[in-house]
Amino acid sequence: MSADATPAKRLVRAPVSVRWGDMDAYNHVNNSVYATYVEEARLQWFRSLDPGWMNTDAAPILAALNTNFRKPIEWPAEIVVELYAGRAGRSSFTASFRIIDRDHAEVVYAEGDSVLVWINPNTGKSIELPAHVRAALV
Amino acid sequence: MSADATPAKRLVRAPVSVRWGDMDAYNHVNNSVYATYVEEARLQWFRSLDPGWMNTDAAPILAALNTNFRKPIEWPAEIVVELYAGRAGRSSFTASFRIIDRDHAEVVYAEGDSVLVWINPNTGKSIELPAHVRAALV
Amino acid sequence: MSADATPAKRLVRAPVSVRWGDMDAYNHVNNSVYATYVEEARLQWFRSLDPGWMNTDAAPILAALNTNFRKPIEWPAEIVVELYAGRAGRSSFTASFRIIDRDHAEVVYAEGDSVLVWINPNTGKSIELPAHVRAALV
Amino acid sequence: MSADATPAKRLVRAPVSVRWGDMDAYNHVNNSVYATYVEEARLQWFRSLDPGWMNTDAAPILAALNTNFRKPIEWPAEIVVELYAGRAGRSSFTASFRIIDRDHAEVVYAEGDSVLVWINPNTGKSIELPAHVRAALV
Repeated sequence: MSADATPAKRLVRAPVSVRWGDMDAYNHVNNSVYATYVEEARLQWFRSLDPGWMNTDAAPILAALNTNFRKPIEWPAEIVVELYAGRAGRSSFTASFRIIDRDHAEVVYAEGDSVLVWINPNTGKSIELPAHVRAALV
Repeated sequence: MSADATPAKRLVRAPVSVRWGDMDAYNHVNNSVYATYVEEARLQWFRSLDPGWMNTDAAPILAALNTNFRKPIEWPAEIVVELYAGRAGRSSFTASFRIIDRDHAEVVYAEGDSVLVWINPNTGKSIELPAHVRAALV
Repeated sequence: MSADATPAKRLVRAPVSVRWGDMDAYNHVNNSVYATYVEEARLQWFRSLDPGWMNTDAAPILAALNTNFRKPIEWPAEIVVELYAGRAGRSSFTASFRIIDRDHAEVVYAEGDSVLVWINPNTGKSIELPAHVRAALV
Repeated sequence: MSADATPAKRLVRAPVSVRWGDMDAYNHVNNSVYATYVEEARLQWFRSLDPGWMNTDAAPILAALNTNFRKPIEWPAEIVVELYAGRAGRSSFTASFRIIDRDHAEVVYAEGDSVLVWINPNTGKSIELPAHVRAALV
């Protein structure tokens, strides 16, 4: 997930059960649902942060989501979304992800990255990454 | 689930993990997603049928879905959908359902019933319930 | 929509464009999406209420949704959801609905009813229907 | 949308009505729904192709979707998804997109690009872009 010498830190490993309703008229999981899977991992990681992931002065927003679809997913399936810490800037960081098969980790259904920006919800302006968020990335 | 002396047969017990994305702007699981939960149980039951739940001459359709919302669901939550066999007619049967908390079965989030009709997909006309489906109801 | 001599009042007529993504692996609009269509009509009606449909002391919740699926919907399609005022009680009322084709009003895709209860969001207890809501029903 | 001297061809302009149910617990349209909006434009364009966009020997799949979220969308809103032809290769092409406000075209809610690959559904292998698809890109 990284060309650096130091491997990226895995932020969360979120198992997800695919639902029949995740499929579309092609009989595969719809592309938009991959974003929901990644969101589930992201929120589970947010929820694990101490002392919290948002308050009245600081909250994250999703600025970008880039997904490469590698292999169709068909119901029933058990998958895992892995989120990794990427480059961190002043107010944002990149979180890359992989969606793999729960029982066959070598099967990669999708991979990509997302950009998370911390803002002040009152002003909508970006702020410095909260120290405890930055600390959780390394 | 039944006024009869004989208790209704439980067709399936489907655990479902609530996703953050199941919630709407009220911060509760959206009402439409309950239908997806019930669908997941129904499809898991369909899938368990031997020798299969649909073929080129016989397939089920959902004719009605009636849901009573008892208690809001908030992420994160682990729920269970239970499907019970109700009255069977010539070409249809009623499947009642309950959505309960996985760890606190006395917490009922919703209950209701659905009507499933078997049709010939080529003609769209209702057909007699396949014998193996009828057998699975009792 | 009513056995009464007085016809039910139509609360709203909400046109909806079916999206390709509304369909499921059966190539028809998924049953759960009908609930989203009805919700769209309900919220458009809520939004039309003067002086507003919720405040810190009073807000509606959906207590029940009963849907009869009459005819599959296939993309592309333009539909209309009609919401009608039904019986009103102290704190709730029944709103029946029809989902019809925009260009062929005799084509009924689904019909059913829903129960809306007004509660105090602080206590979760039901309250009397706000006067302006009750007035909008007749 | 392009650094080339020749401006990119607009493939489709798809108006979409935002639904209340598109919003999530943040009170904004959920990020996954943007993918559904883009999909709607893509499918409308597919549908406009003559003589058709898929057959037993050739069908498109979505290989990548990259979205930059510029501005939150709140219900009610009327938006437009514009799809533009980008670089074409042997079996794939890039389609960039913009999601803008219907009445204020200078308001850009999101922009990004997608990669569409044509495959033989029987083998899963990529094939040459059908001639009529390639012709529609210029």
